[in-house]
Amino acid sequence: MLTYNLSNIGSDSLYEHLYKCIKKDIVLRKIKPGERLPSKRTFAKNLGISVITVENAYSLLMSEGFIYSLPKKGFYVADLNDVQPTKQVHQETVVLTSGHTHYLADFSSNQTESEIFPFTTWIKTMKEVLKDNQKELMINSPCGGILELRKNIATFLKEFRDMDVKPEQIIIGAGTEYLYSLIIQLLGNDIKYGLENPGYPKTAQIYKSMNVHFEYVNMDSYGIDPQELERKDIDVIHISPSHQFPTGIVMPISRRYELLGWANKVKNHYIIEDDYDSELRLGGKPLPTLQSIDVSDKVIYMNTFTKTLSSTIRMSYMVLPESLANEYYKRLSFYSCTVSNFEQYTLSKFIENGHFERHINRLRNYYQKKQEIILNAFQSSVLKNKVEIYNESAGVHFLMKIKSKKEEKEIINNAYSKGIKLNPLSKYYSNSIENNNIYVMNYSSLNSNKIEEIVEKLKQCI
Amino acid sequence: MLTYNLSNIGSDSLYEHLYKCIKKDIVLRKIKPGERLPSKRTFAKNLGISVITVENAYSLLMSEGFIYSLPKKGFYVADLNDVQPTKQVHQETVVLTSGHTHYLADFSSNQTESEIFPFTTWIKTMKEVLKDNQKELMINSPCGGILELRKNIATFLKEFRDMDVKPEQIIIGAGTEYLYSLIIQLLGNDIKYGLENPGYPKTAQIYKSMNVHFEYVNMDSYGIDPQELERKDIDVIHISPSHQFPTGIVMPISRRYELLGWANKVKNHYIIEDDYDSELRLGGKPLPTLQSIDVSDKVIYMNTFTKTLSSTIRMSYMVLPESLANEYYKRLSFYSCTVSNFEQYTLSKFIENGHFERHINRLRNYYQKKQEIILNAFQSSVLKNKVEIYNESAGVHFLMKIKSKKEEKEIINNAYSKGIKLNPLSKYYSNSIENNNIYVMNYSSLNSNKIEEIVEKLKQCI
Repeated sequence: MLTYNLSNIGSDSLYEHLYKCIKKDIVLRKIKPGERLPSKRTFAKNLGISVITVENAYSLLMSEGFIYSLPKKGFYVADLNDVQPTKQVHQETVVLTSGHTHYLADFSSNQTESEIFPFTTWIKTMKEVLKDNQKELMINSPCGGILELRKNIATFLKEFRDMDVKPEQIIIGAGTEYLYSLIIQLLGNDIKYGLENPGYPKTAQIYKSMNVHFEYVNMDSYGIDPQELERKDIDVIHISPSHQFPTGIVMPISRRYELLGWANKVKNHYIIEDDYDSELRLGGKPLPTLQSIDVSDKVIYMNTFTKTLSSTIRMSYMVLPESLANEYYKRLSFYSCTVSNFEQYTLSKFIENGHFERHINRLRNYYQKKQEIILNAFQSSVLKNKVEIYNESAGVHFLMKIKSKKEEKEIINNAYSKGIKLNPLSKYYSNSIENNNIYVMNYSSLNSNKIEEIVEKLKQCI
Repeated sequence: MLTYNLSNIGSDSLYEHLYKCIKKDIVLRKIKPGERLPSKRTFAKNLGISVITVENAYSLLMSEGFIYSLPKKGFYVADLNDVQPTKQVHQETVVLTSGHTHYLADFSSNQTESEIFPFTTWIKTMKEVLKDNQKELMINSPCGGILELRKNIATFLKEFRDMDVKPEQIIIGAGTEYLYSLIIQLLGNDIKYGLENPGYPKTAQIYKSMNVHFEYVNMDSYGIDPQELERKDIDVIHISPSHQFPTGIVMPISRRYELLGWANKVKNHYIIEDDYDSELRLGGKPLPTLQSIDVSDKVIYMNTFTKTLSSTIRMSYMVLPESLANEYYKRLSFYSCTVSNFEQYTLSKFIENGHFERHINRLRNYYQKKQEIILNAFQSSVLKNKVEIYNESAGVHFLMKIKSKKEEKEIINNAYSKGIKLNPLSKYYSNSIENNNIYVMNYSSLNSNKIEEIVEKLKQCI
């Protein structure tokens, strides 16, 4: 069995190091052409690393022709004489290793922890679907999604957010990003969209990639100011009033009404309300959504199950005002629903049987405790006087200002060398702002058992 | 228990009729406010109709406020004094009932039959995934899809289509329609796309909806002619050379090379090769794909599992040339993969364990026999001298010319009144052509036990 020392890998990621080790041995003919490599599982176990790491290394070797695979048999070393110099396809280094970072702490990651996914209930529900809905599983979903699921979401929205929504207004899609593309097709790509500054960077990437005209709009401490929207001639504004990302601002009710006022003035004006993590709000009753106080069909409400269930389950939904729902059915119903029936029925039953509500209650408790542990660790350490914490009442991140004479960049580099990935607020601004040493601390993937170690190392960096 | 006579429903669909019956009884107070309606399942069983039909009727009643539902309890009659006149959201009549048509024969439907889905093996594979991949299920998929699945598709393409493809060139998405939107973002929306005329109408709808410049290109008997592309200044042409839809034309190898020649002349030129049902080709070895004979990165190959597995499983893929794959990773890798991990791992194992190959072999046999039964029934009837059959060697549809003095429209209406939905070729043309009495006969959802009856009725129509 091959074995390698993986303790001293320099700046390489684990799989790159493994790839280099194996490649070297192949080139040096220590492993002969035709020889079978250990199975991914066995190799991973022997080296004490994850199967994905081995998989990534093998995949890289395969794409360069050093090894090849035989289905059901395994991986074999290629004859080097057959290895052609190939055009190098860009390796998805970042993406392939996502979730397998070897950071001590990654405050930029929003990967959900696998431990908190309700695996047992989910599988139980899947089995129920296979038993109860076998016939329905084979019948094409309506374009907006399975009616049963949309009804259950409507009921949930009524109970949880006091929203009165007809199932027909709900459109299911494979992720919020996909739903944006539907919104653009619905509202048009010849109008001007507005994005919060700072804001979630992917939204801007989508608008840019789809060649849609958009502008950033600065916020005051209440969120987006309607006067700014007037000034910039925005038609459709994209906001997250329950918990703005990344600032954490919760938009007060007065500002919400002002925004609805702005939307009502012009026929083209719409508000896209992204309520992405309202279920995870810690403490206090959430403010009513704009959708629920809108009486004139001006708000498109969006939410997702990727935050509450798992980022690997691709189901989101939007609630269209009735007039836009009609437009949608008229113009876009030729699109097939992008989520498979099986997942739709599973989620539907999962909500209907009360599992989803119980799950988010558990989740809130879990994150509440986790946040307490983290904040306590900060407060009871020497960091206490060196940091200020903001906006910790909602969701799974808070803001932290580091009081230090060091520049942001230096602190980030120091932290990086100690295995901590810091996530500066400045990177979420469209314009370059003064480095203010404020960091967005996403703790959803943090191992709270290591918090003492993290605090200790962080202290050394600032 | 409520009961209704559903034998004489006029032009209503079944659920509309049921909805009217119940509504009438509610309005006449035969069913009292607060009274519980039978459960969907029981009601369906008693009336001898499908659960979906009851569901659709209930849903319509609910959307109009005649009944309401209590989670886990059932459906109750509302107090009519509470029923508000509501703005009517367009009912997705067509879509909600799709697959539940009460046609004797629907030659326009491409809904796959639920009987041919390999349910047992698929469920078995799902269970294996839950057992073997629990950890991986929670780790974010790379943007292009789970590497394991892409490797298995690459192996399949090698064995089945003799295509040499690196897993990194394969991009998984929730349906071909979604992948088109990625292609548009990749190649740009400021160039001119070309579509086959006649062709698959959804492609045009997508381009139109995304505001992309496109033009129809007429075909000769070999498919698209490169000279036409030159003349119309097309940059990217969309073709299905293995089995053009709806004409069934199989593009000869010489024309394939000519098209590659056209693509090679100009940097911007690309060919989108939609190989949507090559697995179902009946008889004969398929011609090589354009992708497999392209040596200059000019072909984007597309295929889907919705035709071979089930239209309710949303998984398709495209194979990008390496240079475009690089572009994709550089510019579009911020998009999350639109297919959930669970489905990706299930399909991956399904292919890896040889189930997919066995399934498509079975499927081919199944359709071959079905086609024989249908064509025999035509040939041995009085229809023999009244119809001509073309292009029956590939896929799940053939073309049928009806030799009749009657106009197309009249024949279609006659057939409709007898429960047969005919699908004229003329509707697939962008320009209005002479009614030629040629019909696209999709037999994938046809009940072959009823073929005698269908032939008999068809005879009366022409």
